[in-house]
Amino acid sequence: MASFFEHIRTLVTEQNSMLCVGLDTDNAKLPAHLMDQTGGIIDFNKAIIDATHDLVCCYKPQIAYYSSQGAEEALIETIQYAQGKGIPVLLDAKRGDIGNTAEQYAIELFERYGADAITVNPYMGTDTLAPYLSYKDKGIFVLCRTSNPGGADLQNLVLDSGRHVYEHVAHLAHSEWNEHGNVGLVVGATQPEELATVRKITGDMPFLVPGVGAQGGDIEALMKAAMRQNVIISSSRGVIYASDGEDFAQSARSSALETRNSINAARN
Amino acid sequence: MASFFEHIRTLVTEQNSMLCVGLDTDNAKLPAHLMDQTGGIIDFNKAIIDATHDLVCCYKPQIAYYSSQGAEEALIETIQYAQGKGIPVLLDAKRGDIGNTAEQYAIELFERYGADAITVNPYMGTDTLAPYLSYKDKGIFVLCRTSNPGGADLQNLVLDSGRHVYEHVAHLAHSEWNEHGNVGLVVGATQPEELATVRKITGDMPFLVPGVGAQGGDIEALMKAAMRQNVIISSSRGVIYASDGEDFAQSARSSALETRNSINAARN
Repeated sequence: MASFFEHIRTLVTEQNSMLCVGLDTDNAKLPAHLMDQTGGIIDFNKAIIDATHDLVCCYKPQIAYYSSQGAEEALIETIQYAQGKGIPVLLDAKRGDIGNTAEQYAIELFERYGADAITVNPYMGTDTLAPYLSYKDKGIFVLCRTSNPGGADLQNLVLDSGRHVYEHVAHLAHSEWNEHGNVGLVVGATQPEELATVRKITGDMPFLVPGVGAQGGDIEALMKAAMRQNVIISSSRGVIYASDGEDFAQSARSSALETRNSINAARN
Repeated sequence: MASFFEHIRTLVTEQNSMLCVGLDTDNAKLPAHLMDQTGGIIDFNKAIIDATHDLVCCYKPQIAYYSSQGAEEALIETIQYAQGKGIPVLLDAKRGDIGNTAEQYAIELFERYGADAITVNPYMGTDTLAPYLSYKDKGIFVLCRTSNPGGADLQNLVLDSGRHVYEHVAHLAHSEWNEHGNVGLVVGATQPEELATVRKITGDMPFLVPGVGAQGGDIEALMKAAMRQNVIISSSRGVIYASDGEDFAQSARSSALETRNSINAARN
């Protein structure tokens, strides 16, 4: 079986898409005809996947939207549905804890939910990442420089070496954590200069780039900064909530198509 | 209703205990007579709580042990059972994500599970902590200097200011995040000198100190470093797996009693 990153490379070519659609499915934002119905979340997700699976290279559900609602089964069903369409699933969970606990999170994310890739937090260091990294065929995206306003609070602190903290994380990811070639980095779309710095440090390491769409990142600037390669560009709210009417799936398709095309225009 | 930290102060006095028992209940480590039984986890936890609730100031379930098993209901039942005995529950989840996602995690932890306090990860910065901090009566423990081997990888990097990253986190917690007096810090037992540094920065801020017992931290050294005040000392495996036989609950009580007494000896 192909590893996550092999699968992504195939889809980027075959579907001509670096777009990842984020399935941050919030019960309170469902179209009126699906809201508060049993199965509303899974019906919504299936409709989004049906409408967009030929336009994406992966899906990225954010686990908090499911665990806040007790919707574990809807998350499992969503992941299996996407995989059934041939699309891998990156489960955005940003876990980080000591080794024996991380082993439990790895079981949760890779075995219970069957995720093909995950996001993790590096603050607790190398031994807390090891249990995930041992899954050689999965994709492990480590938070590096995030796109939110507070992302700078710790990540942009300057070290006595002259490096920023996020650059140090990029160095560790490149030189220590990527023995199995299964590591990627989360680098936000809203800081293209920093994204370019991380690209220089890490060569062709894959980046997960959130922050396009609702968060306002500029696609041309980020693609240039990433050397126009090895990026998965994630859009969540901008795609799945493009309309809150009965046409939500068709609107999501239009938004996904437009975003994919903008990415491709910036790619070449 | 008393806030989490008021409740803790009352129990530290009334029960004469700064001990927090960690409920990292691993299905694979249950006593043989409970293993793989439906309800094994909750039966185990109730027996541990029955045997120790007069010796502790709080319980700390680690959520990964439950979510890896699909044992969400056992976690809810455990939390309610402990609270029914008058003991608050710190749900160890170490979440960290952008604001709208953090709001969902806050719903998960405080509303779905009814936790009295949580742990959070500061790597993504101030705006990612805000949704938790707005729950004024809850306790929010921010990771500062952790007790695992890799804890130094990022936390002990030296900044151009001369401070370490973990000291910067302590400063932020003290000066920016604690407006409602509901912030604590996670500082490991295995680095007493660093714990003393964090105490100097943060005054009387409460510390959650894991790493006693299985992880090898020295109680006398950490109590001295903490100025013998405002600490919650957590022990998990050393208490709940003190025996794997049918006497597990009695053995847990003996271990909890011994740990509490060691803490009290170092307190005075």
